Amino acid sequence: MARITIADIARRAGVSTGAVSYALNGRPGVSEATRERILAIAADLGWAPSSAARSLSGARTETVGLVLARDPQTLGFESFYMQFVAGIESVLTERDYGLLLQVAPDLDAEVRTYRKWRAARRVDGIVVVDPRLDDPRIAMLSVPEPLPAVVVGDPGLAEGLTTVWTDDAAAMRESVRYLHALGHRDVARVAGSEGFGHTWIRDEAFRSETTALGMRGQLRSTDYTPEQGALATRDLLGSGRRPTAIVYDNDVMALSGLGVAAELGLTVPADLSLIAWDDSPLCQATFPQLTSLSHDVVAYGAHVARRLFDRMAGEPVGGFHDSTPQLRVRGTTGPLT
Amino acid sequence: MARITIADIARRAGVSTGAVSYALNGRPGVSEATRERILAIAADLGWAPSSAARSLSGARTETVGLVLARDPQTLGFESFYMQFVAGIESVLTERDYGLLLQVAPDLDAEVRTYRKWRAARRVDGIVVVDPRLDDPRIAMLSVPEPLPAVVVGDPGLAEGLTTVWTDDAAAMRESVRYLHALGHRDVARVAGSEGFGHTWIRDEAFRSETTALGMRGQLRSTDYTPEQGALATRDLLGSGRRPTAIVYDNDVMALSGLGVAAELGLTVPADLSLIAWDDSPLCQATFPQLTSLSHDVVAYGAHVARRLFDRMAGEPVGGFHDSTPQLRVRGTTGPLT
Repeated sequence: MARITIADIARRAGVSTGAVSYALNGRPGVSEATRERILAIAADLGWAPSSAARSLSGARTETVGLVLARDPQTLGFESFYMQFVAGIESVLTERDYGLLLQVAPDLDAEVRTYRKWRAARRVDGIVVVDPRLDDPRIAMLSVPEPLPAVVVGDPGLAEGLTTVWTDDAAAMRESVRYLHALGHRDVARVAGSEGFGHTWIRDEAFRSETTALGMRGQLRSTDYTPEQGALATRDLLGSGRRPTAIVYDNDVMALSGLGVAAELGLTVPADLSLIAWDDSPLCQATFPQLTSLSHDVVAYGAHVARRLFDRMAGEPVGGFHDSTPQLRVRGTTGPLT
Repeated sequence: MARITIADIARRAGVSTGAVSYALNGRPGVSEATRERILAIAADLGWAPSSAARSLSGARTETVGLVLARDPQTLGFESFYMQFVAGIESVLTERDYGLLLQVAPDLDAEVRTYRKWRAARRVDGIVVVDPRLDDPRIAMLSVPEPLPAVVVGDPGLAEGLTTVWTDDAAAMRESVRYLHALGHRDVARVAGSEGFGHTWIRDEAFRSETTALGMRGQLRSTDYTPEQGALATRDLLGSGRRPTAIVYDNDVMALSGLGVAAELGLTVPADLSLIAWDDSPLCQATFPQLTSLSHDVVAYGAHVARRLFDRMAGEPVGGFHDSTPQLRVRGTTGPLT
């Protein structure tokens, strides 16, 4: 059977081939009703763009790619990614783009996915998250004629690529200074996964600020799960010299910390102050409500998507500061008593 | 002549339908010799894939589509979708498929997205979530030669389409009976969005079971957010005859309920019992830990993805029971004191 062409659809719909082209490519120039009718006829006839034709004509895929190199079992724990994806989608929807989401077991698989997407022209651009120190993805994406990309992280982690970043170091320093002003001298940080650039940046800021202020600063590494957040809290509170304040690297671990404190009979904040990172709705659902480092993750995702469209439109590479997470003081922090 | 199905090929080859599906789709999971034998038998029987896209062009898109008709701002609230997507991805990754994710403002936009995906051959199949009563998507997907689809919901909500479902009515009845056995006679349900089929199914089960057991059952509608969960809880506890137990429609609203109880000076579970739906890691991070209706959402997503691959491989439409959420009793429920 012969391939269905735009002319076939135009004939059946009784419109010009130009109108069909507008409708199929999601461009203005036809009414919504006509577009619907043309799309229905195209679907009926089984029309599909030839990938060769599309790559030759430089047609857009109207798709943006995102790979998450995470264990699928741990993806649901944090609200961050769903809110971030929701923010990306809010911009894609306006422009009728879709998000191609792939979960990969590791960074090598992520790089292979990019290669495959490039070869098969599956996406117009990609969003790269969780940049690490010496990240193989950054080198791969910096070769000539790369996929347009936006890296979500500090510009120092992705030279030569467009980045959108939040100033985590400044936010961490502010938290430590705030706890110092409340009289705390023994503080701890329950950190996320080692190897992520932003974990390292927060670690460094925590170490340097506690040292500068003459405070004792303990550090525990976790994988971001509530289980490990609870374990780290138990470990810290059971130690010889227990901290009077803990800063967590996400929301669910701070929630776990609040649970462990209640279980041990400690009153928050009289006996122990707690700070969460990522001010999700969870932080206001607890009692007392969680003091948090707050940034608008949905807006962050939307900002990243806008910069990616700029990049796909040929705008030069740049480093864009999104925001500095702000300390939102609620019920889980207070003066040392 | 009757259509040749995968089951016919499996019978003739003396292998499972899964093995046939792997062989026909060129996926790992069968030996090369078995693949050859299955392909020979398929050719012998005159088997052909059924979907419109593949019968017209042999090319797969290696993409599965999912539209979420939700406000992007509310998508990050619940852990359900991220876990569900993670489950889908765990199966797609094995087969080197990607997930095309689109957030649409409403069901009409969702239907337009399906039309567009069909016309442009963007996906090999779709996962449809949150079926409603009189859902326009079901009618659209039931026309001849539709996109292969799996609907996540009760078979009664999507006649003519493949469904994968959890038995929410049975789970709700079990919860009510459990509270009754503890001595509770005044109970409430804080429900999710009206219009969703599963909300209606749970409402009906709550109403009929409380009535059957001679209990008073109050019902409040929400949009699933922690804010509305807190509001509904405050409203119920401030009423003349306050319930002694509340069943919530997700995890974060139950968390809010726990916060409101603490704020009002009520002890859980001595003064008030609480049950969450969806046993996310959150439920074990609180103190006391939340009694929950537990089902493995990651496994649910994986099951849906496997049924979609079967459907794309030409397996007949069916209704597949995934599981019945199980009541996991923890610290927030107890006898009426």
